[in-house]
Amino acid sequence: MIKILLSLLLPCVALSTPKKISKETVAEVMKSTQASDWRPLVPENVLYLELASGRVVIELAPEFAPEHFANIRTLAKERYWDDLAILRVQDNYVVQWGDPNSEDTKKKKSLKTAQETLPPEFEVDMKAIPFHTLGDKDVYAKETGFSNGFKAARDPKTKKTWLVHCYASVGVGRDNDVQTGSGAELYVVIGHSPRHLDRNVTIVGRVLQGIELLSSLPRGHGAMGFYEGNDKNTPIKSIRLASEVPEKERTQLEVLRTDTALFTRWIEAYRNRQEDWFKNKAGHIEICNLPVPVRPI
Amino acid sequence: MIKILLSLLLPCVALSTPKKISKETVAEVMKSTQASDWRPLVPENVLYLELASGRVVIELAPEFAPEHFANIRTLAKERYWDDLAILRVQDNYVVQWGDPNSEDTKKKKSLKTAQETLPPEFEVDMKAIPFHTLGDKDVYAKETGFSNGFKAARDPKTKKTWLVHCYASVGVGRDNDVQTGSGAELYVVIGHSPRHLDRNVTIVGRVLQGIELLSSLPRGHGAMGFYEGNDKNTPIKSIRLASEVPEKERTQLEVLRTDTALFTRWIEAYRNRQEDWFKNKAGHIEICNLPVPVRPI
Repeated sequence: MIKILLSLLLPCVALSTPKKISKETVAEVMKSTQASDWRPLVPENVLYLELASGRVVIELAPEFAPEHFANIRTLAKERYWDDLAILRVQDNYVVQWGDPNSEDTKKKKSLKTAQETLPPEFEVDMKAIPFHTLGDKDVYAKETGFSNGFKAARDPKTKKTWLVHCYASVGVGRDNDVQTGSGAELYVVIGHSPRHLDRNVTIVGRVLQGIELLSSLPRGHGAMGFYEGNDKNTPIKSIRLASEVPEKERTQLEVLRTDTALFTRWIEAYRNRQEDWFKNKAGHIEICNLPVPVRPI
Repeated sequence: MIKILLSLLLPCVALSTPKKISKETVAEVMKSTQASDWRPLVPENVLYLELASGRVVIELAPEFAPEHFANIRTLAKERYWDDLAILRVQDNYVVQWGDPNSEDTKKKKSLKTAQETLPPEFEVDMKAIPFHTLGDKDVYAKETGFSNGFKAARDPKTKKTWLVHCYASVGVGRDNDVQTGSGAELYVVIGHSPRHLDRNVTIVGRVLQGIELLSSLPRGHGAMGFYEGNDKNTPIKSIRLASEVPEKERTQLEVLRTDTALFTRWIEAYRNRQEDWFKNKAGHIEICNLPVPVRPI
């Protein structure tokens, strides 16, 4: 078969060879990463969504949504999601989970000590959070870049920073009223980045591993991709904080840091692909088109 | 359950009520479409990819890749793809099909009268093709818009127009040499738009219906998402031109025209969403984020 289209998935080999700044391939930059270019995960910030098909690993972004972060941690600790379900799979859009009986006051599951609703956390004070600029233009925001490893945007005029909707972003479902979200119902982007949702929804994190267990689920045929009938839902075995799981059962991952000189080279390697296969170099890179690598420790 | 996130899929009701140009919702613009705002498909330009799970409908773009178009039509007429297979499903990237034995000179299937390789058709003369501008900026191209109903970009400096890689775009697999494609191996984008592939691959069309039959396939675990072992491939029953299928077996669809005053309103309704759910209007729209509706006749 014809081996077209270089993969985003690359072998990860840690070498300490110094490299020149430009004209590197993605694989060359990856090979030159050193231990200090990677960051470990904080188990208190990691969720494991357990399905029959395997584990989905989600990294939460506490600095961007502290109240939702706290509520989600409470929900996980109190085992709110155990035996609930994935309710919605809309093609080129989102996978969403929660309580199939959330609209039935008699049958719906108690949120116990967690909050039923929370104020929105769509953006934060620009000065409160580090930001490493991508350095390329963007259709939707004045500036895009990375904050604490997450893809973000900011506007010097409003002095706000916010997380952007890319493939694998995890957000908080809400009704028309912005005060109606709680984190009990979460969604994951499984299609082209729906950037028009930026600053309309609280983003709480992103999927680091296992998203294919969500993106390959059968699509729902009801309105907005909801499954028609709860018998079609995909059951959730559990959602746990990594910190609540015995250490030997944790998924040991590390993520490429986004605040390093190496990451600047990584961006450039994607902006102008040097591999033989590419005949026209793009000259630009869009925030959602740049992978932030994750690897097993 | 919480009904978050307004769907891209909307009921299509043809009314003739005149509407004001701005501050319309997507649903309001859709309701005001008239028969003349829609175009029928040309059966000679449509492929049916038949899987056990159903039919995927692909519209070809002959003006952008005439040689590949002719070759693909020959391959379909001569039943090249019948009993071949989907070989690759890479998450957030592409689904690809072709001959599992293409690298085995003894076992590979004959292309009969079709060409084994073709010169690339990455871009066309700007003057040779109509272009209706989107009117918003873009990360990758000087200008984006629509040509004959397809999402396109152009550069007044090089005087070229090309089709862009969005979700559902169909492209031609090739090796490092740009002369190695033929259309026998095709891929469909099933993730965030890989715009860095623009002008590196010949795009031949887009999926109009049934993409969820491709995007929900199990991911391949080999390099670049190829399945490990041909037993894991998804068999293709057949690929036929709609014009070669009896009329009563055809999928009768029509597509919203992209060269009308109504379509300009459609763009604006997406650029600044008027639905109550949206609290922050984006003010911009990116070419791959704008749906071009398709509906049954």
